[in-house]
Amino acid sequence: MKIENEVVKELTDKCKVLWAINHAVSLLSWDTETYMPREGVEERSIAVSELMALAHRILVSDELSKLVEKASSIEGLNDFERGIVRVVEREVRIAKAIPEELVRELAKVSEKARVVWREAKQKDKFELFKPYLERIVDLTRQKADYLGYDENPYDALLDLYEEGLKTRDVKEVFDYIGPEIKGILNRVLAEGYYPRKHDLENVKYDLNAMERVNKRLLEIFDFPKSRARLDVSAHPFTINMGISDVRITTRYEGYDFKRSLLSVIHEFGHALYELQIDESLKATPVAHGVSYGIHESQSRFWENIIGRSREFVEAFYPEMSKELEFLKSYSSEDVYRYFNTVRPSLIRTEADEVTYNLHILLRFNIEIQLINREIKVSDAPEIWNEMMNKYLGIRPKTYRDGILQDIHWSLGDIGYFPTYTLGTIIAAQIKYHIVKEIRDFKEKIMNLDFKEIKEYLREKIHKWGSIYQPKELLQRSFGETIEPEYFIKYLKEKYLAG
Amino acid sequence: MKIENEVVKELTDKCKVLWAINHAVSLLSWDTETYMPREGVEERSIAVSELMALAHRILVSDELSKLVEKASSIEGLNDFERGIVRVVEREVRIAKAIPEELVRELAKVSEKARVVWREAKQKDKFELFKPYLERIVDLTRQKADYLGYDENPYDALLDLYEEGLKTRDVKEVFDYIGPEIKGILNRVLAEGYYPRKHDLENVKYDLNAMERVNKRLLEIFDFPKSRARLDVSAHPFTINMGISDVRITTRYEGYDFKRSLLSVIHEFGHALYELQIDESLKATPVAHGVSYGIHESQSRFWENIIGRSREFVEAFYPEMSKELEFLKSYSSEDVYRYFNTVRPSLIRTEADEVTYNLHILLRFNIEIQLINREIKVSDAPEIWNEMMNKYLGIRPKTYRDGILQDIHWSLGDIGYFPTYTLGTIIAAQIKYHIVKEIRDFKEKIMNLDFKEIKEYLREKIHKWGSIYQPKELLQRSFGETIEPEYFIKYLKEKYLAG
Repeated sequence: MKIENEVVKELTDKCKVLWAINHAVSLLSWDTETYMPREGVEERSIAVSELMALAHRILVSDELSKLVEKASSIEGLNDFERGIVRVVEREVRIAKAIPEELVRELAKVSEKARVVWREAKQKDKFELFKPYLERIVDLTRQKADYLGYDENPYDALLDLYEEGLKTRDVKEVFDYIGPEIKGILNRVLAEGYYPRKHDLENVKYDLNAMERVNKRLLEIFDFPKSRARLDVSAHPFTINMGISDVRITTRYEGYDFKRSLLSVIHEFGHALYELQIDESLKATPVAHGVSYGIHESQSRFWENIIGRSREFVEAFYPEMSKELEFLKSYSSEDVYRYFNTVRPSLIRTEADEVTYNLHILLRFNIEIQLINREIKVSDAPEIWNEMMNKYLGIRPKTYRDGILQDIHWSLGDIGYFPTYTLGTIIAAQIKYHIVKEIRDFKEKIMNLDFKEIKEYLREKIHKWGSIYQPKELLQRSFGETIEPEYFIKYLKEKYLAG
Repeated sequence: MKIENEVVKELTDKCKVLWAINHAVSLLSWDTETYMPREGVEERSIAVSELMALAHRILVSDELSKLVEKASSIEGLNDFERGIVRVVEREVRIAKAIPEELVRELAKVSEKARVVWREAKQKDKFELFKPYLERIVDLTRQKADYLGYDENPYDALLDLYEEGLKTRDVKEVFDYIGPEIKGILNRVLAEGYYPRKHDLENVKYDLNAMERVNKRLLEIFDFPKSRARLDVSAHPFTINMGISDVRITTRYEGYDFKRSLLSVIHEFGHALYELQIDESLKATPVAHGVSYGIHESQSRFWENIIGRSREFVEAFYPEMSKELEFLKSYSSEDVYRYFNTVRPSLIRTEADEVTYNLHILLRFNIEIQLINREIKVSDAPEIWNEMMNKYLGIRPKTYRDGILQDIHWSLGDIGYFPTYTLGTIIAAQIKYHIVKEIRDFKEKIMNLDFKEIKEYLREKIHKWGSIYQPKELLQRSFGETIEPEYFIKYLKEKYLAG
């Protein structure tokens, strides 16, 4: 893949400084979560906001706009070039649509909101967070209006996280998977093969032993040390400074070891996406994963399709039990069930594969209604609890276990949650396509041999970076866009007795 | 200290983005030397050069120039405000003086030169490095011409590292200390109390034990964990992201333990300077140490005046021997002599307090002659060797031990070396001033009680950041500028028998 057109070349060169700012802000963020001395936070946030504002000024500059305009009128560009023009045009359009005051106001409010949210959650007082959430909803609605939309203001927000995604698309997905999931859930609970709880959830582990398990796993995955790192942070995440420097983190809670292990597998999936982007895209505007949904499909593919599979658990069991002594009194079958407990639960991040998307459905419904001013923020906690009861048959007793559980809204991220469901679905979709080409897919996992699987993902998804829009990428690689049937099929095959 | 003037306030706000870029580039550099995955280097260098070019464009922008001009014509500013205007004006002047092509050319050449220098040093082939050094000398001379000077083109280069320093000043210093040092050296060698070599230089240590010694030392120094870090890198350095995030590194060679320990003490001195800058200067253009010379005075004060003192070695001996078992067969007097071996040697970075400045004198002489085109690069190795023989009575047998030993020239840093001598002298100068106020200075060290010493340095040097020019700072704090007599007095008192 090569940039031949002179105007696109010029555009790519001009954008290199934006790439560089992004590179720097990524490292600043990584450092904030890993090694920064505690009191460095004030200066760090000055630096980040100055750099973000600078990037914004460059994005909205006449110079860049003119160049983008010129480039987008050129015919006969190759796919790589068209991708660059599309991505930059989109970024410029978004940056120009939202007035600077609004950006600054949102940044200011969410800076404080994050702190207040933490306090409100800790004290279990929704009242503290309420005025901030009201302000954020109000400003986000304004943002949607500035961005523009055809049908629903929520469309404008979805598009920020998943280019081209519409409220209608998401509704359609949920209308189908919602009832299906409820049916599956009832049967799983009735059949009882997958337990609701498991002893191993309470077993403590030695931190160093667990670290060795995670490192061993990354060795098996052939996580490239010369281009990637694993560190520790309060919440696991993946961040990339480029395609040759991708970093993941995990955490060690000290008990319930699957949480640490599965988070490593999850983040590995994100990291692999960035690591397998084609070398020729380096430092260009398309040198990163194309959307949150596609990214999440990669992390979930590794976490769920591979990490929670019977084959993987069985194959990796000897490695785990070598380090984690307590596993010697459990069979690999025990560990498989422990990895796959199924129960209606209050907390999204602890939800299993079956129930997870109901948590998202709930958030999606509340977000739409908030943005469309169909409900008030003050009513949202009760609506949340009722919906939990409706979807999962349980009702939170605290705000902490209800509406205050997630950080997203305090950051101003409304419209983000649906990408989790998208990712889950696409992961299952990929599973059914991959077995058509890698017929011994299960055996490969049994042999802990991931080479061909990684190659497949590289060819179908990773190497393209952001060259194609999410839908176009899926269409090109699998001959279809998002198809939730695969996910339901996957759940039925895995969780229901024949 | 407060910024009251509206124009200076505006100027400071405008400069915040430069501070932010600097913050980011500092973290990028720190990361490159500590945690970056090896192959991240290519993207890292793209990011750094884009960010540097961006900072340059902001510095030379009409907007900033007009504001600086306006600010510099205001009368009655307070010292803080005047400092800000002086620092920004200087940066703008330097940025504008050097044409962008020259900056880019120098960056390009030195990028390659650094690699070639490493290879040339390893293979001991000066010929490899010669064309690069020629080009660097040539470009640096052009830089000096663009910057402008009254007497000597070398003045323009000195000023880059030490604001206001003239070739004449440095010559005067060396004309005095050169012969004095030679006299002292001869007597030290004749007296033999300070050994030329010491057994302990070859003794291996356990890396973890050494790490504990270094950490214990930083505890004793009250190095603030919430605002600072110690890490490991190939070459020790100090870098600050701000006054609340200052990081030092050391290395563990595995033998000759004083190298690791003294480098920690040295870098601690640098770090303390940044950590004790007044809070009100945070994120302004004066929020960093004022010059390389003053900075080096702080590191050398801690390394030499404190770290190599009899009192410190005696007081810290129990802590060291607790971890380093082998020290039990040596007395603290042994360790003191080991910390203070004196011998003519070929390598600057391994030189002792007595001979160190002769290494700088040599470099200073060669640099001036190269820049003034009085000698050719091709003759420099032989001139180097002859001067070594003249000053220290020894002659390098390889280029590696001669002209190829230092990285500086490959980076384009010509005019930098003299700041090391300045720092050494000022460190000694401070010692004689400090004992006037802290009369039990030696006892404080004996008790490992550094509180008052740190407070003294804070008041006299640190808290002012870059508010005052180096010379003005010394004048204000000590009633005199640089006075090399103190250094000679110090050497005589320490190294010569009464």
